[in-house]
Amino acid sequence: MDPETKLKELTAILNEVADLKSAVDLLDWDQQTYMPPGGAANRAYQQATLAKLRHIKFTAPEVGQLLDDLQLWAAELDPDSDEARLIKVTRRDYEKKVKVPSEFMAEFTKTTSNAHLVWQQARQTDDFAKFQPYLEKIVELRREYADFFAPYDHVYDPLLDDFEPGLKTTEVQEIFNALRPQQVELLKAISEKPQVDDSFLHQPFDEFRQEEFGMEVISKYGYDWNRGRQDRAAHPFTTSFGLGDVRITTRFIPDYLGSALFSTLHEAGHAIYEQGIASHLDRTPLAEGTSLAVHESQSRMYENLIGRSYDFWTHFYGRLQELFPSQLMEVDLDTFYKGINKVEPSLIRVEADEATYNLHIMLRLELEIALMEGSLEVADLPEAWKSRMEEYLGLTPPNDADGVLQDVHWSSGYIGYFSTYALGNLISAQLWEKVNEDIPDLADQIRRGEFAELTGWMHEKIHRHGSKFEPQELVERVTDSKIDPAAYMRYLRTKYTEIYEL
Amino acid sequence: MDPETKLKELTAILNEVADLKSAVDLLDWDQQTYMPPGGAANRAYQQATLAKLRHIKFTAPEVGQLLDDLQLWAAELDPDSDEARLIKVTRRDYEKKVKVPSEFMAEFTKTTSNAHLVWQQARQTDDFAKFQPYLEKIVELRREYADFFAPYDHVYDPLLDDFEPGLKTTEVQEIFNALRPQQVELLKAISEKPQVDDSFLHQPFDEFRQEEFGMEVISKYGYDWNRGRQDRAAHPFTTSFGLGDVRITTRFIPDYLGSALFSTLHEAGHAIYEQGIASHLDRTPLAEGTSLAVHESQSRMYENLIGRSYDFWTHFYGRLQELFPSQLMEVDLDTFYKGINKVEPSLIRVEADEATYNLHIMLRLELEIALMEGSLEVADLPEAWKSRMEEYLGLTPPNDADGVLQDVHWSSGYIGYFSTYALGNLISAQLWEKVNEDIPDLADQIRRGEFAELTGWMHEKIHRHGSKFEPQELVERVTDSKIDPAAYMRYLRTKYTEIYEL
Repeated sequence: MDPETKLKELTAILNEVADLKSAVDLLDWDQQTYMPPGGAANRAYQQATLAKLRHIKFTAPEVGQLLDDLQLWAAELDPDSDEARLIKVTRRDYEKKVKVPSEFMAEFTKTTSNAHLVWQQARQTDDFAKFQPYLEKIVELRREYADFFAPYDHVYDPLLDDFEPGLKTTEVQEIFNALRPQQVELLKAISEKPQVDDSFLHQPFDEFRQEEFGMEVISKYGYDWNRGRQDRAAHPFTTSFGLGDVRITTRFIPDYLGSALFSTLHEAGHAIYEQGIASHLDRTPLAEGTSLAVHESQSRMYENLIGRSYDFWTHFYGRLQELFPSQLMEVDLDTFYKGINKVEPSLIRVEADEATYNLHIMLRLELEIALMEGSLEVADLPEAWKSRMEEYLGLTPPNDADGVLQDVHWSSGYIGYFSTYALGNLISAQLWEKVNEDIPDLADQIRRGEFAELTGWMHEKIHRHGSKFEPQELVERVTDSKIDPAAYMRYLRTKYTEIYEL
Repeated sequence: MDPETKLKELTAILNEVADLKSAVDLLDWDQQTYMPPGGAANRAYQQATLAKLRHIKFTAPEVGQLLDDLQLWAAELDPDSDEARLIKVTRRDYEKKVKVPSEFMAEFTKTTSNAHLVWQQARQTDDFAKFQPYLEKIVELRREYADFFAPYDHVYDPLLDDFEPGLKTTEVQEIFNALRPQQVELLKAISEKPQVDDSFLHQPFDEFRQEEFGMEVISKYGYDWNRGRQDRAAHPFTTSFGLGDVRITTRFIPDYLGSALFSTLHEAGHAIYEQGIASHLDRTPLAEGTSLAVHESQSRMYENLIGRSYDFWTHFYGRLQELFPSQLMEVDLDTFYKGINKVEPSLIRVEADEATYNLHIMLRLELEIALMEGSLEVADLPEAWKSRMEEYLGLTPPNDADGVLQDVHWSSGYIGYFSTYALGNLISAQLWEKVNEDIPDLADQIRRGEFAELTGWMHEKIHRHGSKFEPQELVERVTDSKIDPAAYMRYLRTKYTEIYEL
């Protein structure tokens, strides 16, 4: 069989793996949007069965054999070609998957499934001790997981690699070590200034008008409704069943404008990324974002760098006032702008503003690394959490429920995930500086509510490549620099110097 | 391995087959309700991949081996036990599936996929000649299909058996030969009487109030919203993803009350059947209705025998008038009742009333059988259609689009399906007589809007068994008679004698 035929054979298998993934994702989307309560028991079975079939199909010896057979041929190709990258990415994913025994995965799934239930109770009753043995078991299993990939430079590397292919723990530590003191210092400067007012955001806002406004904005952003839709879900998320069907979800809070508005812009950023992937990559492992951090750079950019900018609201604020005259007619643009950018240290990560968000992340990353290294015991985690909260944010959690127990991630086995949120922020600012160089009148365009050139640039530089490149590689290709905190700090300083008159 | 362990092993495979079926059904539900246009291409791939995996898993030699191994053991069990029936039904399905080569199925799927597209064009342009070669090919393939099950008494038997397990062509012919002249005669008698008025149904009716009324009624019927939901779809249908999640869909026509109302009651009948299947049968081949005809007996009963009865409207008409005062306040109950039961021969099956519907079916069945026997050529089908329409319904189709080209079934390869609709009507009347014997005050209950005892009786006699019994077997167990047209004719005669003063 010639290599072209073998590649076709490999692709045919990968296509079916993609179909199974899409079906699993649809089972999940439906569960979070429309499924009646009675469907829950069978849904869990359906997801498990399809996930298993997907795993069996992807890790079949036949796939390994085809990858081996194609190795030499691929080495002769343009390394940036779709074919070479498809083989490279598939080999990477394949080798990761086959290194982990299915008995281990079964135990991990069972452990996290129980741990998740216990965590829900522990958080409700503020009882860390109850969750402690489960988290200890998870840390142990995560170490065992890392060992399947030995030798490694750092025990945290294999975990991080699942979300940020190729990125090393030391790289992230360097980035965050440079970033943290600057963020702490900026926050301190802000906290010495008079606070801005955002009380006008906390009033009753008709849900359907909130929805209408969000749809108007993301349509202008370039979200393609022909290849997507928006539904309601308790926890907003974006999902795709192939590049022609990328859906977002939103949660509407009737007496707080900020929630649905910014979460809609955020999810639209994720969705515009997926919709922008080159369509010929569809049904292959390349038809997704390159990493969680790069994905997050897009959602944060459309949510924050654009959606919380003065230029943006210069265009859209009149329309928002028109939709909510009684709530906003007396609030002028400057007040509104300052209100949606209010900085206030809070205990809860998901409520954090742009100036404090990364601090929540860095705290978590440091603790995760310490747990994995064994320099911190799970039993000592609550105290370690509290002392860092004081150091970074100046707050002391009154309990563990609003402290170490607040996030779902660890209970689900996700150790290695958190840093992607902060890295996404950093990348968004790097891309923002670059796109403003390339499109000198971008600010003017935004003040006119025009996003076609901006989104086109993102399609061209980032989206269309799908997951062909590793995150550091892609960021460097586009910005001539690897992930670097300088741009984000420039962005924060400029913004808050003006708002808080630093 | 002991038989119990083997049965567990078999059940585990069947559970996964059921999970795959549920996932395919969800892909289909989503396609018909919420999927954006851009999702269509990938959706077809996803459905094909999962259907293939389901087929492979169910027809694996391992399944055949387990069935063989369990045969002797099962022969010792109570033949009505779940275990014995599970093995029997699985063996039946397994043997049918493995007898059909996958190359044949691939050709059949490709042929019908093309034929369906051509049929759409042919119907639009009223061009039977265009569709003719495709239908010829389908008839040929259906004969080839039947031959996989040779020897048979009649070439149509294997086709019918796919929808009505165990039922023979001669049985259906006998039933319909007894039924047809009585229906033709009744229709003639009705057509000599003055027509009733139903113009009030054709007015603007607010869609959300239509929906509200339908939901109120089917809630009283016993449809469990905790295990289901209702969405909008162009062609109403019922689907389930296991017994805890049985969904219906409805289409609302803003200026005709009859459409959404009766289709909601119809689909609720299907759904109440599925919700009533014993929950321990879930995720097995027994967790579905016993046949299309028995399924249809439930939908037609809740739609027609109940939903178009005077007793029903004695209770509900006030509420309907309250929801639509300007449209219905001047229409009294008698006029409304007669209007929703208006008999008028029409060219189109899906618009047919209770007195004419079966005639549309019998025409189709006779033509199908003649095609399969070879006594009728596809080329002569349009003329054969027209002459029977005149004979049975007194109408002459002005074209083929509203004649032989009106139904989707044949273009999709469904030859053997139509009779189930009429058989469902007959069974519904048999069950209706029986349940009225067992619950003497049922009419009173319905006049009070109470359906708990009725639906409970259906659960007990029909629903809970799932597909344990063949349709004739089940009908006989419940009514002491096989499928028989007498009850349905008694029902029609009583009803229309009163309405049309025959």
